[in-house]
Amino acid sequence: MAANTYDVIVIGGGISGLSAAKLLVESGLNPVLLEARDRVGGRTFTVQNKQTKWVDLGGAYIGPTQNRILRLAKQYGVQTYKVNEEESLVHYVKIPKEAPWRAPHAEEWDKMTMHEFFDKVCWTSAARRFATLFVNVNVTSEPHEVSALWFLWYVKQCGGTMRIFSTTNGGQERKFVGGSSQISECMARELGDRVKLQSAVYSIDQTGDMVVVKTVNDEIYKAKYVILAIPPGLNLKIHFNPELPPLRNQLIHRVPMGSVIKCMVYYRENFWRKKGYCGSMVIEEEDAPIGLTLDDTKPDGSVPAIMGFILARKSRKLAGLTREERKKRICEIYARVLGSEEALHPVHYEEKNWCEEEYSGGCYTMYFPPGILTQYGKVLREPVGRLYFAGTETATEWSGYMEGAVQAGERATREILCAMGKLHSSQIWQPEPESMDVPAFPFETTFWERNLPSVGGFFKFVGVSSFLTVATVVGVVAYKKGLLPRC
Amino acid sequence: MAANTYDVIVIGGGISGLSAAKLLVESGLNPVLLEARDRVGGRTFTVQNKQTKWVDLGGAYIGPTQNRILRLAKQYGVQTYKVNEEESLVHYVKIPKEAPWRAPHAEEWDKMTMHEFFDKVCWTSAARRFATLFVNVNVTSEPHEVSALWFLWYVKQCGGTMRIFSTTNGGQERKFVGGSSQISECMARELGDRVKLQSAVYSIDQTGDMVVVKTVNDEIYKAKYVILAIPPGLNLKIHFNPELPPLRNQLIHRVPMGSVIKCMVYYRENFWRKKGYCGSMVIEEEDAPIGLTLDDTKPDGSVPAIMGFILARKSRKLAGLTREERKKRICEIYARVLGSEEALHPVHYEEKNWCEEEYSGGCYTMYFPPGILTQYGKVLREPVGRLYFAGTETATEWSGYMEGAVQAGERATREILCAMGKLHSSQIWQPEPESMDVPAFPFETTFWERNLPSVGGFFKFVGVSSFLTVATVVGVVAYKKGLLPRC
Repeated sequence: MAANTYDVIVIGGGISGLSAAKLLVESGLNPVLLEARDRVGGRTFTVQNKQTKWVDLGGAYIGPTQNRILRLAKQYGVQTYKVNEEESLVHYVKIPKEAPWRAPHAEEWDKMTMHEFFDKVCWTSAARRFATLFVNVNVTSEPHEVSALWFLWYVKQCGGTMRIFSTTNGGQERKFVGGSSQISECMARELGDRVKLQSAVYSIDQTGDMVVVKTVNDEIYKAKYVILAIPPGLNLKIHFNPELPPLRNQLIHRVPMGSVIKCMVYYRENFWRKKGYCGSMVIEEEDAPIGLTLDDTKPDGSVPAIMGFILARKSRKLAGLTREERKKRICEIYARVLGSEEALHPVHYEEKNWCEEEYSGGCYTMYFPPGILTQYGKVLREPVGRLYFAGTETATEWSGYMEGAVQAGERATREILCAMGKLHSSQIWQPEPESMDVPAFPFETTFWERNLPSVGGFFKFVGVSSFLTVATVVGVVAYKKGLLPRC
Repeated sequence: MAANTYDVIVIGGGISGLSAAKLLVESGLNPVLLEARDRVGGRTFTVQNKQTKWVDLGGAYIGPTQNRILRLAKQYGVQTYKVNEEESLVHYVKIPKEAPWRAPHAEEWDKMTMHEFFDKVCWTSAARRFATLFVNVNVTSEPHEVSALWFLWYVKQCGGTMRIFSTTNGGQERKFVGGSSQISECMARELGDRVKLQSAVYSIDQTGDMVVVKTVNDEIYKAKYVILAIPPGLNLKIHFNPELPPLRNQLIHRVPMGSVIKCMVYYRENFWRKKGYCGSMVIEEEDAPIGLTLDDTKPDGSVPAIMGFILARKSRKLAGLTREERKKRICEIYARVLGSEEALHPVHYEEKNWCEEEYSGGCYTMYFPPGILTQYGKVLREPVGRLYFAGTETATEWSGYMEGAVQAGERATREILCAMGKLHSSQIWQPEPESMDVPAFPFETTFWERNLPSVGGFFKFVGVSSFLTVATVVGVVAYKKGLLPRC
């Protein structure tokens, strides 16, 4: 085979692309993987330094039913540990001084679609605040930005409202000891010099016998097939010959990534546990920079820290501040919510604004604005000639998570194996055996929980009233329509 | 100066980029213009052949208050002519067999934002159908896809509901004799070998003394400044060093282009005029492929033709058909609406699906989904280092039209002249004297028209009831809120 000629070119060195390349090698094929950045891992990004030992500035949380990523972790000997949730969680609700319906017209109107404009209705409720936070936390975007159909799908494919939002028994139950980047680094090590860093792709030409791929560092690669393991919107970084079909050409302009700044504040002592709080906070106040926190202390109790997300609209607003100012505001809200002056005196601070990453476009994942899913969704993972599509956005279980990245990468590889005649089409989609180490438990339900919004086994809220209401809106209504399972 | 080194690199050879380059040369500077396609004109595209003489498959219509594009046309001796509107316009409304609220849940829900989902309200009305068409026609997208604030702004910056939607005295009053591409071709001829075709840009490096720009045909250009005269979403085709600031990095993933297929049906005779119809049709029926038509017969009465738009959701649905099937369906609806069997026997057909154009992304223009304008709008034309932003999407008058392209291109050039110290910042934005040949008239208003939805001087509707309702919704409500002028 000529130099730079391969069976498959995988574009994107996040978990999805690496999973695809790994399975290609295991299937006896000869892939190369092209990564734009100078590191693998994509939206997982573990930094090591003296103050933190290690810190996950990107994707970090894993939990039951995420069996593929757990399988990879086990294979590489990466341990998991449970995020602290022994003590009480704080749910902090402050009634805003100004009612939201008195907000200036411009912003209110911008939040409406024209559809809403025609359908105009009044609604005011405390539930709306929690509902907003529920969307903010799960998809790093605003309720008025996203399609309801898409959001309900998103929650469903994560196993329901309880599974997606829970720490214990849910999507945030665990983290990897040593950080999530290890998974990508282990796969990359296995792949060796098949992984090419700083190799952003700008051109794909399918007009000849082989697909020709060009990179910004002036390399040319050729292969029989290509897997695009990048967010759909980043397909736009590539000039295609021939052009993409009309629906895909327009889809990739319509699926933005969410907005989040991940912030870690480090303290000398774990003062919150002493006060009986686990470190989880749900903060609804509009002026608070952070919407959700989780304890980020190391499993051995060292390096006490609180992880907090600056979400959606707040990330845009606070991106203009200095790092120091953001840190100050975060500590102030922690002091207020935890009722402790110690929160004002951190010993270290780390943050990562994912909105500034050219090769992610945002985090955690893609969202569908209204009207797009039913019009364009069907071409999301439809191959285009010899191009196949991976990336967590194309997954059908835990899409948006590390788990979905593995599912999508392995599925895209099997699509190519099928196209090569090495696999029957019925084998492309494969279920994953349950992890023995991290089993999933059904959520307990009582009569009232089945018929009313449930908090059992979910969150030990200090105040639950507004959550109950949103559970009604999001959970029960959707449940009754058959769109959402209860667990 | 070294080879391939210029004062300014203009990216994009549509009307905006060409206007920018033209003004740069007139200001004594040395620009180069890089165009991805093998032709100039961008979203204007005139084709010449025996059957049509010439046909505008892209942007074509101009009208009063569009003084900049009229100035350019006059300079190059390109004449305008009035679109036929002597006879009656047909407004075709069929009550749909199934009420829209009985549509399958999935699609209905996808049309709602989560905001709407929480705010759920019922609304049913015939007005809704016309309202939808009003949005479809003006911005080639769906009411549930766009921000109300953005849409109201869009109508306002075109001079109001009457100006934007009218033929006589409005945005569709005239066309260019010989086609709109002539404007771009004349400017390109003037610029000579400064215009480089088939030169799609994939990389911009601002880290050195000069900005370095690379193209897919392996050329390298250097300059002090760059003007990006392309739709904001197409900024994504370029790999930036350093990365764009976070807000711009996310903005360009959030502003898709509309969806339209422009279709021209040619007939032996102008049978509709004989029946007393001008050729303008407003067709609301859901099954009809076309939403709006205008007479496209040549000014001397030769080459009888009807221009029709397949808009938004219908363009997605009908993109999968063959060209012949689309033609057939279009002729069938014309036959039904005009009540004439002659419509079934065209002599020629032309169409252009703008959704398939990699270097446009769609047509006519960009839209803002809900929530984006207030969060990201402010960075739309904010320079990034030595990068300046043109393109009709960045205009403040007739944005989305050829007129806006000229305003934006010339403004971006003046921003650079200002940065060079050749111009005071107060001179960047310049008003344009009114065209003598195409003057604007105020729309007549009576007491009732001022206080009720107006049809005077606007459309001679065969049926006006549902338009009245939408004028109430869109026009009067917005007028009362101070968002829309009446003319």
